[in-house]
Amino acid sequence: MTLADSLSRRDNGTTALDTLARAKSLVEPALEEITLRLSPELRPVVLHHLSGGGKLVRATLALISAKAAGAEEETGLVGALAMELVHNFSLIHDDIIDGDVERRHVPTVWAKFGVGPALIAGDGLLTLAFQLLLDEPTTERVKATRLLADATQAMIVGQGEDINSEHRSSLTLEECLRMEAGKTGALLACASSIGAVLAGADETSVTALSDYGQHLGLAFQAVDDILGVWGDPQVTGKPVGNDLRLRKKTLLISVANSKGFDVFAETGSALDQEMSDAQVAAAMELLDDCGARYETLEMAETNLNAALAALQRVPLDPGAVSELSAIAHYVIERDK
Amino acid sequence: MTLADSLSRRDNGTTALDTLARAKSLVEPALEEITLRLSPELRPVVLHHLSGGGKLVRATLALISAKAAGAEEETGLVGALAMELVHNFSLIHDDIIDGDVERRHVPTVWAKFGVGPALIAGDGLLTLAFQLLLDEPTTERVKATRLLADATQAMIVGQGEDINSEHRSSLTLEECLRMEAGKTGALLACASSIGAVLAGADETSVTALSDYGQHLGLAFQAVDDILGVWGDPQVTGKPVGNDLRLRKKTLLISVANSKGFDVFAETGSALDQEMSDAQVAAAMELLDDCGARYETLEMAETNLNAALAALQRVPLDPGAVSELSAIAHYVIERDK
Repeated sequence: MTLADSLSRRDNGTTALDTLARAKSLVEPALEEITLRLSPELRPVVLHHLSGGGKLVRATLALISAKAAGAEEETGLVGALAMELVHNFSLIHDDIIDGDVERRHVPTVWAKFGVGPALIAGDGLLTLAFQLLLDEPTTERVKATRLLADATQAMIVGQGEDINSEHRSSLTLEECLRMEAGKTGALLACASSIGAVLAGADETSVTALSDYGQHLGLAFQAVDDILGVWGDPQVTGKPVGNDLRLRKKTLLISVANSKGFDVFAETGSALDQEMSDAQVAAAMELLDDCGARYETLEMAETNLNAALAALQRVPLDPGAVSELSAIAHYVIERDK
Repeated sequence: MTLADSLSRRDNGTTALDTLARAKSLVEPALEEITLRLSPELRPVVLHHLSGGGKLVRATLALISAKAAGAEEETGLVGALAMELVHNFSLIHDDIIDGDVERRHVPTVWAKFGVGPALIAGDGLLTLAFQLLLDEPTTERVKATRLLADATQAMIVGQGEDINSEHRSSLTLEECLRMEAGKTGALLACASSIGAVLAGADETSVTALSDYGQHLGLAFQAVDDILGVWGDPQVTGKPVGNDLRLRKKTLLISVANSKGFDVFAETGSALDQEMSDAQVAAAMELLDDCGARYETLEMAETNLNAALAALQRVPLDPGAVSELSAIAHYVIERDK
């Protein structure tokens, strides 16, 4: 199946937007309520962040993964909430690290409230995720807690690799894939299987759902890296070639690297300095000519197909499989 | 018992330094080994911080609390390690928040490695504490994990109150006590009981040990606040009246407040500005004259006695009780 085929395929008329909207109506009020357990000082900080209005993809995956294992979606709710708490902890801390002042056209938490409140708001969200799951320490919930703690650590490892990569001119393809698997894949793999864990599913089902999420993460990241260079500025809100300008160590750069092309060196761009317009244009041409753009797109396709194939490995609820397929297409298809 | 009596009393010849040294020899190598589970990028960051050489008071309390419940100290080891992981997570993040560039005469993590690595090193330590406890999810270890998660959240709530207090001229005594109970007491209460939880102790023993730690935290904080003003500069490494100069909202200020004295307003000190030498001298005189210094010292005494009394409420291992008493005296007696 080619990427074009994948993108145009629709499963049983299910649309990802319907699924996301349904999940959101269940998760959003519960998420707001759970923040009452934070301190009165931190709650407004967190609510400002949540009001930015994410799509709650991770919560949605958690709910459907319970359904995939034959349970009610609500069985996955506590896992869905924990996923969003950890995801938002990571966003709030990432914005401090990157110095980003806006997210979805709204001031980031540290930009609005200061680094201190942002930092401890993130700490509070992470801790709350563990408290929430262990409120009723059943075997399933303890297992889900371990899954979440391991995924969170894997994400943090990926962030460490990412920060470290700033001092280097490029990453090998292997290093870049490992970093992106950690940064994006680990939490999506956890989200895609935590509902099944809470539903008491067997190990093979949990692993299949986790594999779906891990591949979904890599497919997402490959598309993200392509859009970071060739995305429509009208849609992404960022200039063409933005990731190149900022010398980000994306998959594109590592794929070129694996073919013997050091994109930054060959376009004469200096470490710790933004690229000029001419250098960005030269780098874009080089990425096209050496086939890095094409191969990165192929990676998105390969991982999308691997994600869909993982869902066929074990008997799962057909409705849930259909929804997970639709979400995979939706995530890859996005244009920003 | 007066504070002077308390300070001069020694239980059965047990010295706190012996106990701390014994615990350190057990905990330090295990702590270094556990950091191998962090990413290769973060481990040196964390090891730099740990090499600062803390006294491992929380780990020591955790080990003795297992012994207090009649178990081997080693039963509390996993709890001791988790306590140190969380404690050091909070120190690394606190140093970012406060902008402190040195801790124990060594550059702080953010000052040496940057805010990003410091922030995620802290995140990694917190997450590792939960991973470690849940490695073997026995009933006792799950219970210990919940205890630690709740204590960590209470600490974060206290930090939130502390940051919020910066925009105010003073806190009420009640607000200040709640903040210090959260910031210092919660983790010490957890440390003092987590070993007993791991040993499967009954609820009343766990509560007694937890109360010991909570009161120890408040006694520690009262002494700390007094030393922050009247401590010997040769010993504390800080000028006389340092906490006043920085307009810190300590117990001393809140006690004065409860007696109708707004120390900062009455000495003509402006919000968001350091106090002058003359203002510091006037504030020190006021704190003495209104009895705030004396009452804060009384609070240390009251809480030290309450901590010691908690240990007598239930039958605990006498050797452990003796060691916990010695540590309480040691913590209060310190001069820096």
